[in-house]
Amino acid sequence: MIVLRDIIGDELRRTRQYQGRTLREVSSAARVSLGYLSEVERGQKEASSELLAAICGALDVPMSTVLKSVGEQAEQAEERQATTQASVVVAA
Amino acid sequence: MIVLRDIIGDELRRTRQYQGRTLREVSSAARVSLGYLSEVERGQKEASSELLAAICGALDVPMSTVLKSVGEQAEQAEERQATTQASVVVAA
Repeated sequence: MIVLRDIIGDELRRTRQYQGRTLREVSSAARVSLGYLSEVERGQKEASSELLAAICGALDVPMSTVLKSVGEQAEQAEERQATTQASVVVAA
Repeated sequence: MIVLRDIIGDELRRTRQYQGRTLREVSSAARVSLGYLSEVERGQKEASSELLAAICGALDVPMSTVLKSVGEQAEQAEERQATTQASVVVAA
């Protein structure tokens, strides 16, 4: 199953690391705890809509940019899943 | 502020209504309560990743399709927000 919080977490972490910023910097700018941001990035916690907006604001990236990238990654994950399932059928 | 759960709720409701299906049918297929699905559609509750996947499954629509549409709608909302803010600046 494709888990949205995993894809969102990966996207947020990738954006932060691309900017060369630390968890501490971004959590402080977003006014969320470092532990919370770290859990969101690792897909261990669902980000509420308000906190996702705050994190996008801290990263200075439009939420739409994050969401469109998340949609594309979900699509790739779905294609990988379909390929795997097709292989299983062929092998069976 | 752009609230993700509002955009997701609108998208899920629009998809369900386009299919001519009732809240009862989709909540039953997704194995979520009718009240929960209704709250998600109205943006009153955050859907967890698992429940969003279940609702997309019940609607027989890939999660990526929902997410990409959500990203586009967030972009339009951001553009409307920017236009409003620009008008305020011009009027000031």
